[in-house]
Amino acid sequence: MRIDGTSYRTIWVDPEDGWSIRIIDQTRLPWRLEILRLTETEQAFKAIRTMQVRGAPLIGATAAYGLALAARQDPATDSMERAAAHLAEARPTAFNLTWALQRMLQRLRNTPRNERAEAAYAEAAAIADEDVEQNKAIGWHGLPLIAAIAEANRRSPNVLTHCNAGWLATVDWGTALAPIYRAHDEGIALHVWVDETRPRNQGASLTAWELGRHGVPHTVIADNAGGHLMQHGMVDLVIVGADRVTRNGDVANKIGTYLKALAARESGVPFWVAVPSSTIDWEIADGIKEIPIEERDAGEVASITGRSAEGSIVRVCLLPDGSNAVNPAFDVTPAPLVSGLITERGRSAASREGLTCLFPEQAR
Amino acid sequence: MRIDGTSYRTIWVDPEDGWSIRIIDQTRLPWRLEILRLTETEQAFKAIRTMQVRGAPLIGATAAYGLALAARQDPATDSMERAAAHLAEARPTAFNLTWALQRMLQRLRNTPRNERAEAAYAEAAAIADEDVEQNKAIGWHGLPLIAAIAEANRRSPNVLTHCNAGWLATVDWGTALAPIYRAHDEGIALHVWVDETRPRNQGASLTAWELGRHGVPHTVIADNAGGHLMQHGMVDLVIVGADRVTRNGDVANKIGTYLKALAARESGVPFWVAVPSSTIDWEIADGIKEIPIEERDAGEVASITGRSAEGSIVRVCLLPDGSNAVNPAFDVTPAPLVSGLITERGRSAASREGLTCLFPEQAR
Repeated sequence: MRIDGTSYRTIWVDPEDGWSIRIIDQTRLPWRLEILRLTETEQAFKAIRTMQVRGAPLIGATAAYGLALAARQDPATDSMERAAAHLAEARPTAFNLTWALQRMLQRLRNTPRNERAEAAYAEAAAIADEDVEQNKAIGWHGLPLIAAIAEANRRSPNVLTHCNAGWLATVDWGTALAPIYRAHDEGIALHVWVDETRPRNQGASLTAWELGRHGVPHTVIADNAGGHLMQHGMVDLVIVGADRVTRNGDVANKIGTYLKALAARESGVPFWVAVPSSTIDWEIADGIKEIPIEERDAGEVASITGRSAEGSIVRVCLLPDGSNAVNPAFDVTPAPLVSGLITERGRSAASREGLTCLFPEQAR
Repeated sequence: MRIDGTSYRTIWVDPEDGWSIRIIDQTRLPWRLEILRLTETEQAFKAIRTMQVRGAPLIGATAAYGLALAARQDPATDSMERAAAHLAEARPTAFNLTWALQRMLQRLRNTPRNERAEAAYAEAAAIADEDVEQNKAIGWHGLPLIAAIAEANRRSPNVLTHCNAGWLATVDWGTALAPIYRAHDEGIALHVWVDETRPRNQGASLTAWELGRHGVPHTVIADNAGGHLMQHGMVDLVIVGADRVTRNGDVANKIGTYLKALAARESGVPFWVAVPSSTIDWEIADGIKEIPIEERDAGEVASITGRSAEGSIVRVCLLPDGSNAVNPAFDVTPAPLVSGLITERGRSAASREGLTCLFPEQAR
């Protein structure tokens, strides 16, 4: 999407050398737009682990390019497999991570050793390009939900989103934000409520930043405010992304998503989840019982980073001495709370039947 | 309650001069324990407005002492009434504020002018002492809820609370925390989940501080985490305070309370609201339609205060340039989501019938 008029993706091969990988360092946002250069697999691992890149699809693309960097260095099968196993450990919950690595390994195993580096770059590029095409399609399939509200209410639709499932979380367009960007670009006036999304504040720092840079009207709210806004008719539609969707339609997404789903049901607000099909885990059914929830560092709750009055970026502690915190990073929204899924093939009910209709070849 | 072994109240008459008012400056917590001296009504107004004191009962007591300071300076009826009208404007949502001022004015109107200053101090002291007695009673009436869980589960009960309805929000004991302090002091091992309570973080900075100083085990969580913890059986009981309760049992409390109530119902977790009867507004029935919700400064969402690595207290901005925020300060939890109310007279259903049984003389 656009940053103040210039088009960007979140990951690309450096056009000057043709092999090193460029990413936007998202830990610097919204304060600084800093482009990093990755030349080794370990840097890709670190970029994923430290959340310089985040969001399931972008994590997958970064892991794929990380394996391409490994193939360039040593294309031996056991070396490839070691690199993939290492990259897979960078984040425990992201399903796309293992999906992308499996796909890369399969391609590489079927490729002669001396062609593997080239094949790896081609496959990583395909993963990135397919993500962009998928997200564009999600945008088109989500657009009618927003357009219908604009038409029915004869005023700007208010869409609430949680965390960042924007273009920064993907290679381009985003998942949850793809329909929003599409609607905006189609000339539908709309307004986005952005949950700040504690503890890491991806809403306040990333979603607000990317919507602002692209020119989409938005307002940041505390995560606590969404229920109140829905009670008072100030939210027409919720769209969030997901880190994993079970074959029954249960949705694992950033901690706090579940609370918004409960409030949406209570106030009759449609609650949609935008996901590429790579996010669907056909192996598991019950999200609450079967999806492992990453427990992240308590320091993310105990402290926060912001800009001081003098303009420096400061991390401040929020807790009294002697108080501790815990930090579950995701929660699971059971399928009955989900109005539907927006995928690259269209919209479906959040159920085994709905998903099977759209993806018959994947359902078992 | 105790601060590292020493007993405190949140407001008291200075024992040295016998007339100036002492308060704990809660905007300095949890970083510094700073005791302020109030000598003029305007300082009491400012203390309420800037949240140096907060919490419905403490706001009421501070307004009462603010009027006592006014009576000492000029006990004329119109001067009293002007001071009361001014103090009433310090915070729009707090029902106790007008309740305490009405009570003070009634006493003063029926008192000869030359005795008004003394009468005002006596009435303010009565309001403060009655608050302490009420909260103690709330503690006793809430205790069985915690004791029953400890007995049934044969492990430490996990109690979740939102915002700060502890002794810092009252004159002593607190409302939501009174049963917790009582259980702790009675030797029941328990653990408290403390919602950080964005945007002002009263949970992370005040509830965690006062629980820690008194020695109650607790863990701070992002406001987003409560639903996940309840889904997984990690919360046995929710107790929150309230800023206003309608005669039908609807509960206005800190923004985000409603989301926790939804999650509690979904997971079968009891959701109790601890309030002194002065918080009940018998004039209104429908909380969502009739309770005006204070909209506070967007800067509270856009920035946050914490302690830097060097130990200085820093306010940092959290939003990208060009992004705005809104900040509704309270939400309303409809009575059907409330398991019951804990008052100074006992526990009741959150309904007109329940409240009428406990307070027949106030019901109309």
